[in-house]
Amino acid sequence: MRKLARKNIFKTKPYMPGKPIEEVKRELGLKNVIKLASNENALPPSGKAVIAAGRAMFTANRYPDGGCFYLKKGLAKRFRVKPTNIIVGNGSDEIIVLALRAFLKSREEVIISKPTFLIYEVASQIAGAKIKFSPLKNFRYDIPKIASLITKKTKLIFIANPDNPTGTYVTGKEVDFLMRRIPKKTIVFFDEAYYEFAKGVKDYPNTMKYLGNKNVIITRSFSKAYSLAGLRVGYGFADSGTVDALNRVREPFNVNSPAQAGALAALKDKKHVEKTLKLVEDGKAYLYGELDSAGIKYIPSVTNFVLVRLGKNAKKIYKKLLKMGVIVREMSPWKLNSFIRVTIGTKIENHKFIRALKSII
Amino acid sequence: MRKLARKNIFKTKPYMPGKPIEEVKRELGLKNVIKLASNENALPPSGKAVIAAGRAMFTANRYPDGGCFYLKKGLAKRFRVKPTNIIVGNGSDEIIVLALRAFLKSREEVIISKPTFLIYEVASQIAGAKIKFSPLKNFRYDIPKIASLITKKTKLIFIANPDNPTGTYVTGKEVDFLMRRIPKKTIVFFDEAYYEFAKGVKDYPNTMKYLGNKNVIITRSFSKAYSLAGLRVGYGFADSGTVDALNRVREPFNVNSPAQAGALAALKDKKHVEKTLKLVEDGKAYLYGELDSAGIKYIPSVTNFVLVRLGKNAKKIYKKLLKMGVIVREMSPWKLNSFIRVTIGTKIENHKFIRALKSII
Repeated sequence: MRKLARKNIFKTKPYMPGKPIEEVKRELGLKNVIKLASNENALPPSGKAVIAAGRAMFTANRYPDGGCFYLKKGLAKRFRVKPTNIIVGNGSDEIIVLALRAFLKSREEVIISKPTFLIYEVASQIAGAKIKFSPLKNFRYDIPKIASLITKKTKLIFIANPDNPTGTYVTGKEVDFLMRRIPKKTIVFFDEAYYEFAKGVKDYPNTMKYLGNKNVIITRSFSKAYSLAGLRVGYGFADSGTVDALNRVREPFNVNSPAQAGALAALKDKKHVEKTLKLVEDGKAYLYGELDSAGIKYIPSVTNFVLVRLGKNAKKIYKKLLKMGVIVREMSPWKLNSFIRVTIGTKIENHKFIRALKSII
Repeated sequence: MRKLARKNIFKTKPYMPGKPIEEVKRELGLKNVIKLASNENALPPSGKAVIAAGRAMFTANRYPDGGCFYLKKGLAKRFRVKPTNIIVGNGSDEIIVLALRAFLKSREEVIISKPTFLIYEVASQIAGAKIKFSPLKNFRYDIPKIASLITKKTKLIFIANPDNPTGTYVTGKEVDFLMRRIPKKTIVFFDEAYYEFAKGVKDYPNTMKYLGNKNVIITRSFSKAYSLAGLRVGYGFADSGTVDALNRVREPFNVNSPAQAGALAALKDKKHVEKTLKLVEDGKAYLYGELDSAGIKYIPSVTNFVLVRLGKNAKKIYKKLLKMGVIVREMSPWKLNSFIRVTIGTKIENHKFIRALKSII
């Protein structure tokens, strides 16, 4: 007789369907609201992606390609891997869920840092995993601590690199240190959703060198640098056996037709990504300068967002910003109560945020 | 210590990523291929849906609305329920997976008819459920048999109504008979993906009358009558507590932005659905007539597809049709080896199928 996890779904936070921004505007009586809360790209998608996804609609009476043939072909070419090394997900979030569903067995454990991307914990709870938490150290993943938590029961280790919500990263040396300590049956899940923003940093790791290895999954996303959060397309690289196992537990048509077409077109528009990186670099430089001159502390970030320390009034400031039409992320879900997280926006948005913040403080 | 199901993923059929139709054409050296294999709508989507989904692309740098606020509002109005009675899925397939994930506990059972829609079995295996099969009787769900299989351990009963691949349906009286025998803790999952095609049939059930009940989930789809298979949008109705539980185990952004916008626009285009129903009725009448006159048996269907009995040469005929550019569904996955399943196409497609079939037989 098979045994199932006790369902932990009512231990997780109740689901809160956030209202669309249009509804928030209506309720607050605001006309101009800027959203710097979800680490979205401030630029609209590449025109090529808009056209490709729109065109896919004319044949949307047909099911999507369940194998993501052309998108995988494009990704394989770009990253010099085989299509059989690629899994495509309804956002890279889905690949987290698939990894747990495919590999986690009874009594096995996962290692999750804290605070980090929240989905690891939620998905692991739903999957019935035993979770070992590794606290951050100076707002960075503590790799020796993670290594020390590994047991025979460790099935998955989640590494957000760069990390969300801190914006910090694990270095190449740290990754090598960790990989030397990984048992055969443990999988390291490198979540590189913000890869494009970090890859230029000197000691940001090349995790792809571990791809031949059976125990790594490396995920990336079209939601950030490619401006396609609304399409939900993430992809993962792994050994072909691992990809096969992930495919067995995914729903056959998990990525819809406009998403596949839009992502493939976006992949080919390198200029859009370059423009994004420039916008984020300039925006961060501006933000750092303004925060420095105002004496406000923040965690230096290799991503498109910054964790800003506002002290015990953080939540009040968050609410005041909201009333002024500036939505940032309030950090109580991560228990970082003296912080807010702000996404780099357009030049105008960044100025508006700084003006609003200064007027409050 | 929590207990997890032994993973059954390697017992399921290996994942076969079907090639896109363009690749099939290239390989077979064919220019004109018609696909009557996946019960898709032969009509392209409503122009309103195409425009709405395309327009959503301009802001696709933003995450989708995780609560599907406007789509739920539209569905609630149309079907006279509250938004809190609605769950939206990445296809109604996803709602099957969510129901298992939310409700199935250790040692619990599901009841699945055989043959029927394949995803119930695959999803139940992955979820670690014990499956009890109820064979069809004269190609129809055997409701008394299903009722007789219910035990204290029965958590979910899947009822595809109308059924795929047979095209038959469970009547209102049969549903009432079953519902009188459902224990408090058993959930009946009515999968009404082909609802629009069947709802005009005299004794097709109104399952919505059981909605106040805690133990029903009723799902429907935008993939069939609404011509939006490529967008992956299904929805379910249930008691609000049940919907809450389903929401707790779904990924926060499971339905992407063009999908939400396209589905909502399609919902409002009643003429498109009317046109579809007319096309299917006319096409079925034509097909029935031609098959009758050729002395070929089939199962009368209340859907947009027909199960056709070709005897022991069915697979050979399937292959010959394929070489002539007519893709129908080969039935070995359902062990209905003497049948093919053909979707009602456009008038031209139906003629092409009949011409090809006659030339073979």
